[in-house]
Amino acid sequence: MLSKPDISRIRSLAHKKFRWEYKEFIIEGVKMVEELLLNPSVYKIKRLFVRENLFQAPAHIHAEYVTENEMARITSLTSPSPALAVVSIPDPVFIEPQKEHLYIALDGIRDPGNFGTILRLADWFDIKAVYASEDCVELYNPKTVQATMGALLRVPVCYTSLPRLFSDCGMPVAGTLLQGGENIYNIPLPDSGFIVLGSESHGISSEVVPLLTCKLFIPSYRKGSESLNVATAAAITCAMFRKDAPPAAI
Amino acid sequence: MLSKPDISRIRSLAHKKFRWEYKEFIIEGVKMVEELLLNPSVYKIKRLFVRENLFQAPAHIHAEYVTENEMARITSLTSPSPALAVVSIPDPVFIEPQKEHLYIALDGIRDPGNFGTILRLADWFDIKAVYASEDCVELYNPKTVQATMGALLRVPVCYTSLPRLFSDCGMPVAGTLLQGGENIYNIPLPDSGFIVLGSESHGISSEVVPLLTCKLFIPSYRKGSESLNVATAAAITCAMFRKDAPPAAI
Repeated sequence: MLSKPDISRIRSLAHKKFRWEYKEFIIEGVKMVEELLLNPSVYKIKRLFVRENLFQAPAHIHAEYVTENEMARITSLTSPSPALAVVSIPDPVFIEPQKEHLYIALDGIRDPGNFGTILRLADWFDIKAVYASEDCVELYNPKTVQATMGALLRVPVCYTSLPRLFSDCGMPVAGTLLQGGENIYNIPLPDSGFIVLGSESHGISSEVVPLLTCKLFIPSYRKGSESLNVATAAAITCAMFRKDAPPAAI
Repeated sequence: MLSKPDISRIRSLAHKKFRWEYKEFIIEGVKMVEELLLNPSVYKIKRLFVRENLFQAPAHIHAEYVTENEMARITSLTSPSPALAVVSIPDPVFIEPQKEHLYIALDGIRDPGNFGTILRLADWFDIKAVYASEDCVELYNPKTVQATMGALLRVPVCYTSLPRLFSDCGMPVAGTLLQGGENIYNIPLPDSGFIVLGSESHGISSEVVPLLTCKLFIPSYRKGSESLNVATAAAITCAMFRKDAPPAAI
């Protein structure tokens, strides 16, 4: 049975302040927790709460059984799932970009759903790491975690200064602009380097624009159409960068 | 000043039951309401609530001034905007598909955010209409309306039986499958017909799969990557269908 202090401690992890105070966040949902259990290298499980008979934890993991009611009190999902893990926030590790790989750089992405969806895309398109400017939303926000559908277990995320990252990196830095770039469907694209995605409201920041070596735009096919959501723009951009590469074997 | 019955009537439109009882729904946010006012042909405004000095309604429209507090009581947004319109749900109109145009067909899309985002894409890619199976989420759900960012004012949506629509239409019917289709990046695609997008959990339904004339798949570039969100898959598919067409003049 969960004690009151347990419940309030776990619930507090919905707030950034407490996630960083305790250096813990929550991964929940059967698929994500199963994947976490298979691959615990980066994220260490502190506590694992499961519904009896609904989720089978491996024998070497100490799982705590909770009732439906208790799970409903600690979840951040609208319909609680049978498994919820409290996980350590790992110490930040900087991934040195390699000249032969493709990376995504997020410049001021504020919406956790967009951040998570882009991480899911990064996994799909074999992006080796995602670099995020310091003003991006937090990776451990429950809505970000949920939107990744597990990709946060597979794609490393580094918060860093993008101008510092791009200066003298000697790698292509591509970004889509609202005006003045080349039509993304018409020009050959590099198969390595950085794809920069700008914020929902302001696009790529003024410190980053001068560092772009490849300025692109995604054309619209109807005059007066509003704009693309940043996650759908990311999908189109990644597809155009990868389309001539050999896909993964199924 | 808003009366209590006014407030409860407007709030009730957050629920499908009352939307259809009153045949009304809500459009809110400055940009969407401005666009609605410019183009009131399909959606008739029943009442318009605005914050004084924060939103300027045209002289011929009767706007009702509300306080910040009143707006907070009738909004479905987390941060209330200066303008909210109660709008009539129009009678359904069936759009007869034309052989030269490109359409999207949604097969069991349940998430209002995905539905709205796809409508926004449809606007961007000059899709002439969106056909939705009867089990799709409702267009007038506040989350759908919000995610369209105004595209619902520009792209007609018809709820209909997809098998009936596709049978004997004599037009290409393209859909992405998880297995067994052609790599979307490698084959020539028709420039008209239907792009079918399947449900988040089950993909394209078993009644529709046999009617596909063009079976596609979007390859992954990393073994073990989970799946694409349907709105990002829609973005990639639309881009591949349109990439060789002339874009709209800016």
